[in-house]
Amino acid sequence: MVEPQGHALGDIGKGLRPAMALLAGRVYDYHPELHLPLATATELLHAASLIHDDAIDHSQMRRGKPTVNSLWGWQTSVILGDYLFATSADMVSTTGNVRVMRLFARSLMTLSRGEMKEYFSAFNLSQKREHYYQRIGNKTASLFAMPAECGAILGEAPEEAVDILRGYGYNVGLAFQIVDDLLDFVGNEAEMGKPVGSDLLQGTVTLPAILLLERCPEDNPIGRLFQDKGNPRCLKEAVDAICNSDIIDHCYKIAAEFLSRARESLDALPQNASTRSLRELTGFVIERKR
Amino acid sequence: MVEPQGHALGDIGKGLRPAMALLAGRVYDYHPELHLPLATATELLHAASLIHDDAIDHSQMRRGKPTVNSLWGWQTSVILGDYLFATSADMVSTTGNVRVMRLFARSLMTLSRGEMKEYFSAFNLSQKREHYYQRIGNKTASLFAMPAECGAILGEAPEEAVDILRGYGYNVGLAFQIVDDLLDFVGNEAEMGKPVGSDLLQGTVTLPAILLLERCPEDNPIGRLFQDKGNPRCLKEAVDAICNSDIIDHCYKIAAEFLSRARESLDALPQNASTRSLRELTGFVIERKR
Repeated sequence: MVEPQGHALGDIGKGLRPAMALLAGRVYDYHPELHLPLATATELLHAASLIHDDAIDHSQMRRGKPTVNSLWGWQTSVILGDYLFATSADMVSTTGNVRVMRLFARSLMTLSRGEMKEYFSAFNLSQKREHYYQRIGNKTASLFAMPAECGAILGEAPEEAVDILRGYGYNVGLAFQIVDDLLDFVGNEAEMGKPVGSDLLQGTVTLPAILLLERCPEDNPIGRLFQDKGNPRCLKEAVDAICNSDIIDHCYKIAAEFLSRARESLDALPQNASTRSLRELTGFVIERKR
Repeated sequence: MVEPQGHALGDIGKGLRPAMALLAGRVYDYHPELHLPLATATELLHAASLIHDDAIDHSQMRRGKPTVNSLWGWQTSVILGDYLFATSADMVSTTGNVRVMRLFARSLMTLSRGEMKEYFSAFNLSQKREHYYQRIGNKTASLFAMPAECGAILGEAPEEAVDILRGYGYNVGLAFQIVDDLLDFVGNEAEMGKPVGSDLLQGTVTLPAILLLERCPEDNPIGRLFQDKGNPRCLKEAVDAICNSDIIDHCYKIAAEFLSRARESLDALPQNASTRSLRELTGFVIERKR
């Protein structure tokens, strides 16, 4: 399985999730022999989940490159994803920390629950903000919270600090996903590596769509798009309705609130280079263009 | 995900893999609070891998019941399988034993490697016995060896006994898969819950097919079946060529040899009720009809 594996791991993305593990560890006692396997395992778990996601969503492109799914088919994606899940669990076991290994397994349970929710709520117009937050909490924020929490545990942080760092990761993860979902509307297609409005085409109702549905519950262009699936005129109408309103600004404000909660929570921790980096990282999350 | 999950776990099969964990533990010190989670986690891991297998193979029936794949589609199968993999890893973490958790993760790596080999070797006529043994070693025997090994570890068995019990499980697993592959030719369709010759139709080259290919490498009915995929006349011809020869007996003898190796290895262990049960279990493996 060398070829699909090499392809899938060739571009490890922004590395925010492993950064959670390393920075949370560095706030207290950093042990490279523990924190590096945790960080790597986190990125592998993330890569595995993206491979399965891309298969389930029939995605052709990811980060501007063809997906494993498009090159080798969904069956190979399933097997390769399983292999990487197992590799990540094996890697995290080198920490020798049962609590960390357990949180790691639980984050995959949470992730799959989020994926299941997303899959079964596609094309469902009755979704509210709280459903969305719960879904992205499972699907995305859990994979920011877990490495932050585990990094703190391996750094022998006091229990209150472990809680704070988990909460920090969770809030950063929520904001990250909100911005990700915004970029599906306002991002540059070339930089994003996928066409504008992809989520809506898949039937995935994200925060901008929910805000539009809140504002005009009747005769909504998203409703028309979901009835007439794949109609490019309906898609353009829905994307325009969102982009020509203040919905994008509103969503950015919500993301900024989660990030400011994340930043404020750090006040209770020792103030050192790592807490500074964790603060700065929140700026990157909101400013990123892809 | 309650409905697909309840369906998938409603019939837990023959329970041989969890039996490995419990019996290996009972040869030495049995700790229900450790061995029961290991046994359950093993069965969950197996269930998860079957759900992914059935999706990849487009299987409609398993143990006489419609598969998750046929009822909810392959996407649901992928997500549910992931969830059960994670649940099994979480469950095994309750043993608090890092070595066991690691062997558990490794067995999923091995399993995926076997699955990948099977997938990429479909319709390949150049496979030899050693490829087959390696493939079923990865795909099946590893999931007998792991619970036997981990059961012994949790039972505080001496290291030589841990090795012996792992080897015992491995040999039983090889024999189990050989008999499974035989039943695809000689099993009762109603009892098996799938039509005779399913493996050949999928392009999976099992031991009976390899023995036929060894005997008549030129102008082989399996070659014709693979060229003319799905042709029922070709399938019948291939199945008849195997069933009307001594190939089935030959395969049973090979399975019996692995089982006798497994039984003999037990001679070096304490002789008690559990080693007796492990011996008796080998009889079930060869005599089973489904």
